[in-house]
Amino acid sequence: MLPESVTAYLDAHRQEHLEKLKEFLAFPSVANVTAEPDPCEQCARWLAEHAGQLGFDAEVVPTDTKPAVLGELIVDEKLPTILVYGHYDVQPPEPLELWESGPFQAEVRDGNLYARGAEDNKGQLWTHLMAIDALRNTVGLPVNIKLFFEGEEEIGSPCAEAFLTKHKDRLKADYCVISDSQFFAADVPSIIYSLRGLTYFELTLTGPNQDLHSGLNGGAVGNPINALAKMIAAMHDENGRIMLPGFYDDVIPLTAEERATWESLPFDESEYAASMGLDALTGGEKGYSALERSWARPTLDCNGIVGGYTAEGSKTIIPSKAHAKISCRLVPNQDPEKIVQSVRAFIEEQTPEGFTVEMKVNAEARPVMIPTGSPAIEASRRAMDYAFEKETALIRCGASVPVTEVIQRVLGIDAVLMGFGLPDDNIHAPNEKFALDCLYRGSKASAAFMCSLPELM
Amino acid sequence: MLPESVTAYLDAHRQEHLEKLKEFLAFPSVANVTAEPDPCEQCARWLAEHAGQLGFDAEVVPTDTKPAVLGELIVDEKLPTILVYGHYDVQPPEPLELWESGPFQAEVRDGNLYARGAEDNKGQLWTHLMAIDALRNTVGLPVNIKLFFEGEEEIGSPCAEAFLTKHKDRLKADYCVISDSQFFAADVPSIIYSLRGLTYFELTLTGPNQDLHSGLNGGAVGNPINALAKMIAAMHDENGRIMLPGFYDDVIPLTAEERATWESLPFDESEYAASMGLDALTGGEKGYSALERSWARPTLDCNGIVGGYTAEGSKTIIPSKAHAKISCRLVPNQDPEKIVQSVRAFIEEQTPEGFTVEMKVNAEARPVMIPTGSPAIEASRRAMDYAFEKETALIRCGASVPVTEVIQRVLGIDAVLMGFGLPDDNIHAPNEKFALDCLYRGSKASAAFMCSLPELM
Repeated sequence: MLPESVTAYLDAHRQEHLEKLKEFLAFPSVANVTAEPDPCEQCARWLAEHAGQLGFDAEVVPTDTKPAVLGELIVDEKLPTILVYGHYDVQPPEPLELWESGPFQAEVRDGNLYARGAEDNKGQLWTHLMAIDALRNTVGLPVNIKLFFEGEEEIGSPCAEAFLTKHKDRLKADYCVISDSQFFAADVPSIIYSLRGLTYFELTLTGPNQDLHSGLNGGAVGNPINALAKMIAAMHDENGRIMLPGFYDDVIPLTAEERATWESLPFDESEYAASMGLDALTGGEKGYSALERSWARPTLDCNGIVGGYTAEGSKTIIPSKAHAKISCRLVPNQDPEKIVQSVRAFIEEQTPEGFTVEMKVNAEARPVMIPTGSPAIEASRRAMDYAFEKETALIRCGASVPVTEVIQRVLGIDAVLMGFGLPDDNIHAPNEKFALDCLYRGSKASAAFMCSLPELM
Repeated sequence: MLPESVTAYLDAHRQEHLEKLKEFLAFPSVANVTAEPDPCEQCARWLAEHAGQLGFDAEVVPTDTKPAVLGELIVDEKLPTILVYGHYDVQPPEPLELWESGPFQAEVRDGNLYARGAEDNKGQLWTHLMAIDALRNTVGLPVNIKLFFEGEEEIGSPCAEAFLTKHKDRLKADYCVISDSQFFAADVPSIIYSLRGLTYFELTLTGPNQDLHSGLNGGAVGNPINALAKMIAAMHDENGRIMLPGFYDDVIPLTAEERATWESLPFDESEYAASMGLDALTGGEKGYSALERSWARPTLDCNGIVGGYTAEGSKTIIPSKAHAKISCRLVPNQDPEKIVQSVRAFIEEQTPEGFTVEMKVNAEARPVMIPTGSPAIEASRRAMDYAFEKETALIRCGASVPVTEVIQRVLGIDAVLMGFGLPDDNIHAPNEKFALDCLYRGSKASAAFMCSLPELM
């Protein structure tokens, strides 16, 4: 499907592309960390410079949080234009002690590249830059390319909407391609047509104005940890249903067709459970399969909790405060803003007497649905089939790539979610990896997509 | 009540006694911290040396945790013998940022001595050594004195029982005096006749074998924080009653007489609440007053909780583990061992499918009741009335001084709990203090107690 010269170029430049990617991975570009100099800014500058070397007219463009990198390489105004999206920011690397090699010192072991961001998203983003390099130096680029690399995806892309609105004309394209997802299974390359949205909030419950002696005051004074536990417990009923008022009002029910398609996917719930050391999959609502629960049903998960004494040994206190980080994954057509209102209503109703509660909203992202009948979906399916030598599945995904929906709504174009990661890549976890095979085949898939899109449009 | 020479000596040596106490307070003798050299051992050696300077035959005696200090000063075998108990270990000083001066750099401000341990218990223990110094250098000691200063009180005195059993003969005395408590109110000096016991345990709930991406896995995989919150919530019913099986079986109900006596104490629940920044006292069981709940009813409080991501910003994970520190305050006649069994039974029943739970017991202490008709109680009441120039109340206390019950059971003697602290001393909290007035009057109360006990026996 790809001209021989392109695949030969990619094969010949593997080491060079890899070494450069390792440089990219060395930046600890965690978006929620404030530091001076800012590793995100340093990373963005490095990335813009690299794009410049590939022939792009590229620059670092500030946002209210971390800067974005924009680039443009127009070969012919009459050719289709593809907007390549990626994010150079990464999840925090903690807990550090569980990493076998430094999260920001990329290391190859057993055919895998280990580093924070190796897969999510620096490595996947890289496949497109490898493809562009190969096409330019062989057959020539068959499409125009625009680049939009953001630095705040892992904190929910708070500025993306304003940014895309502001740069709408500059980012005009026919389709967007995003590689920020995983295969359905190690042998099932996948294109995603729906992602969940997100509401991430923090609750701080305050009782007494300082930590108190639990002997002298225990029994008289209410305990904010116990009270917060009670509030969190009340957020689900016995069947795992979320009890926030009106939470399910806008959820689009699963179609019988989707349920049937998903049942035919090669997925074994007990194997999946065992891979995580579990003997049962107990998350979510009763009455739905695991795939249905993680793809098409909303969730409410505590992502962190802390309060009172947490160091070694005992300390007998009633703490002044307890704090929880909680996020909801949302499905089409839930509105994050309505869910935040629903959380507020719940809190108002459930905060026990004697406590004050503070709520902070960290992130909101809408869920997204992408029509599957477009030339771009067809081109990407062919490219994936070709590069990975397997049949590609069209699936949903439980994760959020908030910008997908913003691109759809603000730029008016659909994205193709062509993911090159594997399910065991440990993204958001210690020892994140990206298989070198996925990196190399991913770059071929990207090149093949760019070559076949013009033919299908 | 005290000879003029004794009070004159105490007044003349205030500065000297205070400076030496500051030296004592400089040791960061936190019992649950392991360090080399061990500040607890250093503190114990310093204390034994100081007792030697006061004329004691004193030594540091090892235990399985932190060493104890034993001392003996026999003036006449025919005189009564008082065992002075105290503890040189202190609560952890965290959170450090809330201290106005260093927790281990004692500082006098506005007539108060600020330091971790200033009141609990280095400062209160010190009053007896000041009294002994004064009596020896004036009228002579009217009683024999034995010293038992432990270094593990704040972790629940795990070795005390074995230690007292082993050194039973050496510690033989007529009464024990313990100053490790507070006045009922700033103008109500108090002697305590009942203390609560304690069971302190830690629960660790494990779900998946590592932190997972909450988008990819949320809905399928159970969340250990949510599950732990549910377990903690289930430990109390809507009326604040503790739901551990058989938890209340051995509780001695309050007598109508005690309830009536306590009602006459100068105690305003709303003032007490307001002093902690609260508008209501919502701890404990419905149907009991705040004093009843904190003195004579058992509790279950989370002292700490931690799980998942707790640093700045957002991280979208389902954590592998969630952890809670929980303690129950127990009242006569509850048995900590039975309560631990009850927690185990509860956990077995309540741990949701898909999770494993680990339980660790950190500390156990039995509650205690002391008969109020003894010569020692009478002597201490007179001594307190005299030194503080106010009427002393006989009260219960919600805290635990586990050794009190062990001394009663193992040595066969009752303790006199003659506390010199004030309710606002911030013990176990930042900015712990001890009023210098309490330090000086406390030393006079101790001397007066030693002088009047032989007359009453």
